[in-house]
Amino acid sequence: MGKILMGPQTLIYPMPALLVGANVDGKPNFMVVAWGGIANGEPPMISVAIRHHRYTHKGIRQNLTFSVNVPSTEMVRETDYCGLTSGSKVNKVEACQFKVFYGKLDNAPLIEQCPINLECKVVHILDLGSHSLIVGRIEETHISESCLTDGKPDINKIKPLTYATAPDRQYQALGGVIAKAYSIGKELKAR
Amino acid sequence: MGKILMGPQTLIYPMPALLVGANVDGKPNFMVVAWGGIANGEPPMISVAIRHHRYTHKGIRQNLTFSVNVPSTEMVRETDYCGLTSGSKVNKVEACQFKVFYGKLDNAPLIEQCPINLECKVVHILDLGSHSLIVGRIEETHISESCLTDGKPDINKIKPLTYATAPDRQYQALGGVIAKAYSIGKELKAR
Repeated sequence: MGKILMGPQTLIYPMPALLVGANVDGKPNFMVVAWGGIANGEPPMISVAIRHHRYTHKGIRQNLTFSVNVPSTEMVRETDYCGLTSGSKVNKVEACQFKVFYGKLDNAPLIEQCPINLECKVVHILDLGSHSLIVGRIEETHISESCLTDGKPDINKIKPLTYATAPDRQYQALGGVIAKAYSIGKELKAR
Repeated sequence: MGKILMGPQTLIYPMPALLVGANVDGKPNFMVVAWGGIANGEPPMISVAIRHHRYTHKGIRQNLTFSVNVPSTEMVRETDYCGLTSGSKVNKVEACQFKVFYGKLDNAPLIEQCPINLECKVVHILDLGSHSLIVGRIEETHISESCLTDGKPDINKIKPLTYATAPDRQYQALGGVIAKAYSIGKELKAR
């Protein structure tokens, strides 16, 4: 069977479901972002794509700081709620019963219930069309003690969500380990 | 239990395992990229973070085009091989038996065996430190006919890989559906 052309599509898998936070007019707000990823190694940076008119975008521009929080599968209701609603109309922190705390940066609100929290300082904002690509330097990383094994982050305890648009718009868990990285490929090397 | 500070870390989940392709000195080459994501909606764009000295980086700068190929779990050996080796030393296409084809763009090599292939034109290259963040406009999307259900991409047939660094460096499959997006959050709305 062959290939079908679909025109230009934002079609990659998997995508994360991240809760991006900012203080807007001094109050913490969070939105869901599936369009984001690590942007640099040294120094550590992350990029997130956010529509210009979004309420969180306003807060990021106000403070030039933001947070990235990785929700677990147990938080799927709250995560989806943050995607369904706007902070301009509802208090998401209250509705989701998020315990908000702050770290090094004054205006990067972090969610206690999320296993991983990154505090970020804006280094670039690229206007790409419908969205801004916001690049932030990761200033600090917080991880829930309960998600560590032998002092290291454990993905089986973090239990992150992935977001998929096809066939339906849905959140999925991670599945089984397929192979060790930097290892299984050696079988081809040996050929 | 509380939170542990880890300093600035490139810690988000899930990350994809993408095969980024470019012609280098006229020949197709592919590398694995876990640091990438959708960067814009209209027009569709994607960003990938690549170390400056990488062989594929050279090809992207030569042509200002690249491809993003989404491998399936069946391609984990080939995917890992592309991360273990450099195109400056080995012919990855030959070693992996990739069937390479081209679409609209002359120098964006696509892998037939990958369920999804994006052809991209470079619109920005941001030097962020150790890596370049390369932003590309998606010019065309190819999908394997066998990965469609009722004409729509089906993630259960695409079977993408995720890459995780913790606790071990490993590739994982996607797991079960947790909830419908733009839906489960309504339960909180109703409260």
